[in-house]
Amino acid sequence: MKSIKSYAAESAEQPLAPFALDRREPGADDVEIKILFCGVCHSDIHTARNEWGATMYPVVPGHEIVGTVTRAGENVSKFKVGDTVGVGCFVDSCGHCESCKDDQEQYCENGHTQTYNAYEQDKKTITYGGYSSHIVVTQDFVLSVSDKLPLEKVAPLLCAGITTYSPLRHWGVKEGHKLAVVGLGGLGHMAVKLASSMGAEVTMLSRSPKKEKDAAELGADHFKLTTDKDTMKELAGTFDFIIDTVSAEHDYDEYLALLKTNGVMVLLGVPPVPATVSPAGLIFGRRSLVGSLVGGIKETQEMLDYCAAHNITSDVEIININQINEAYERTLAGDVHYRFVIDMATL
Amino acid sequence: MKSIKSYAAESAEQPLAPFALDRREPGADDVEIKILFCGVCHSDIHTARNEWGATMYPVVPGHEIVGTVTRAGENVSKFKVGDTVGVGCFVDSCGHCESCKDDQEQYCENGHTQTYNAYEQDKKTITYGGYSSHIVVTQDFVLSVSDKLPLEKVAPLLCAGITTYSPLRHWGVKEGHKLAVVGLGGLGHMAVKLASSMGAEVTMLSRSPKKEKDAAELGADHFKLTTDKDTMKELAGTFDFIIDTVSAEHDYDEYLALLKTNGVMVLLGVPPVPATVSPAGLIFGRRSLVGSLVGGIKETQEMLDYCAAHNITSDVEIININQINEAYERTLAGDVHYRFVIDMATL
Repeated sequence: MKSIKSYAAESAEQPLAPFALDRREPGADDVEIKILFCGVCHSDIHTARNEWGATMYPVVPGHEIVGTVTRAGENVSKFKVGDTVGVGCFVDSCGHCESCKDDQEQYCENGHTQTYNAYEQDKKTITYGGYSSHIVVTQDFVLSVSDKLPLEKVAPLLCAGITTYSPLRHWGVKEGHKLAVVGLGGLGHMAVKLASSMGAEVTMLSRSPKKEKDAAELGADHFKLTTDKDTMKELAGTFDFIIDTVSAEHDYDEYLALLKTNGVMVLLGVPPVPATVSPAGLIFGRRSLVGSLVGGIKETQEMLDYCAAHNITSDVEIININQINEAYERTLAGDVHYRFVIDMATL
Repeated sequence: MKSIKSYAAESAEQPLAPFALDRREPGADDVEIKILFCGVCHSDIHTARNEWGATMYPVVPGHEIVGTVTRAGENVSKFKVGDTVGVGCFVDSCGHCESCKDDQEQYCENGHTQTYNAYEQDKKTITYGGYSSHIVVTQDFVLSVSDKLPLEKVAPLLCAGITTYSPLRHWGVKEGHKLAVVGLGGLGHMAVKLASSMGAEVTMLSRSPKKEKDAAELGADHFKLTTDKDTMKELAGTFDFIIDTVSAEHDYDEYLALLKTNGVMVLLGVPPVPATVSPAGLIFGRRSLVGSLVGGIKETQEMLDYCAAHNITSDVEIININQINEAYERTLAGDVHYRFVIDMATL
């Protein structure tokens, strides 16, 4: 596939712009997908601007992809032309390590292949993401998407959805649990919706009173201001779980103190500086500070099916591809409810 | 009980010295215990010297107590005069909070009563520990001790034993698990013995080559020097569990990197400064950094029974009570294999 349409950053300093991209022809196990919608994740910005220091230019970001199968290789049994499908944060993995065999490809011990700015398993071909007209992915890393839900709102489930769904399932969040969400962005708003749908009593923790109305609309049972010291004192020892989606520097101990005995705080965001944690805060209360990274393919399919069954989607703002640079600025300013999604028909 | 014999610190600057201690007469639910042996825990030193800033002088330390029942109140059904019993780190708790009802009195939400330098549940009577001829404890916080094992070697199980046993059980350590122990002191040597007895493949991680022989004698399968960068690189991603018993400042990320996906690092020591932790190290591998505090009474009894059945005791050095100040200095210098235990007959 020569010179297909895409948007790429050609350096850390340049805005994203139209780019003629070459992709492989679909092989025997591959699915070719015409991309309909692609979500805009904060990782896209970090990578486009080389903020994680490992960007290979030109880079075509995008890993919240929904589209239609346009070609399928001869060994492809899971999908046929015309199927609605999704692609998330990674498109391959070694397939034989303990994590892969355990359906946890996100933790592939030999390194999974991220959807963009990464090497295919051949260790030499670079991957390009969803800000493009088509993508070619081996069938085992393609997800089936129900046509029941509006597809533009499904796209962010492929990253923001699974990133929040996976820890909720892994740590067994259910009815009767009190759960707090820190940070109301792309991840946070999905955490509220999903935890709520699983029966947890959800509290939105925020520094901004302006978010109270939004939190309630998303399904949060309570809204608490973390800037109020009396509130924080009242909340001490009250949560079974805290889902921390914040990737700016913040005080972990302040939140750990809100956990009950045996409580678990799940980190989903990576702040630019290491965290400071008081071991005593963990010891006196047998608390856990844990991290979680997206989810495996099997679990991502389970999440998509769950969302279709429970009518759960992301709140999105649709943009044309030529608005992408502006969307980046607005994402950085927190001016999005809660995910930009590119209508790829505008490419 | 007026003017019973004990050793107390009368200020942070004074050495421990003989002290005439008053205790309550045993009430209807109380057991009076003649103390035979009392272990010397690092906490005793911190408290005697007010290093945690909350010491109420005079303080009588000691919470690794083994003795004989000398009197029992009229409601006491669990013990009779002549029974061999133990007392650990706490002697009472509220009894009605969620943690207490769940046999986790160590996390009592209303504050358990520590064995010394704490308030009884009446919130006014101060507790005094095991460096004394007798102690009076409500029967529900007294442990039954088998006469099968040498009692001087059982005493440290009441703190060092249960502190390591509880997390091993809570996180389900068993055959097939690879487990590392950091720090070879009172806690560390029990962690090696107990984890080994549960079938785990145990690696002692140490900065000192001198500890290799000791580690092997305690039952460690492997010994690895953490000062060797190549060794640390080889060990990356290899452990299911790390039991970190170190209470000096150290690099947590260095150890977290040694955990497998889903690995758990258990903190048992409280360094004087907060820990620095990289959230990415937790997220990429769904790792857990957790803490654990001693164990509940039910679990402590289970541990004592387990140790009796498996012939597990602490390695101790017996001292006379008048050697206690010297023992403190040697403990601080790491010059003990692995626990000093006071022969209380020398009081």
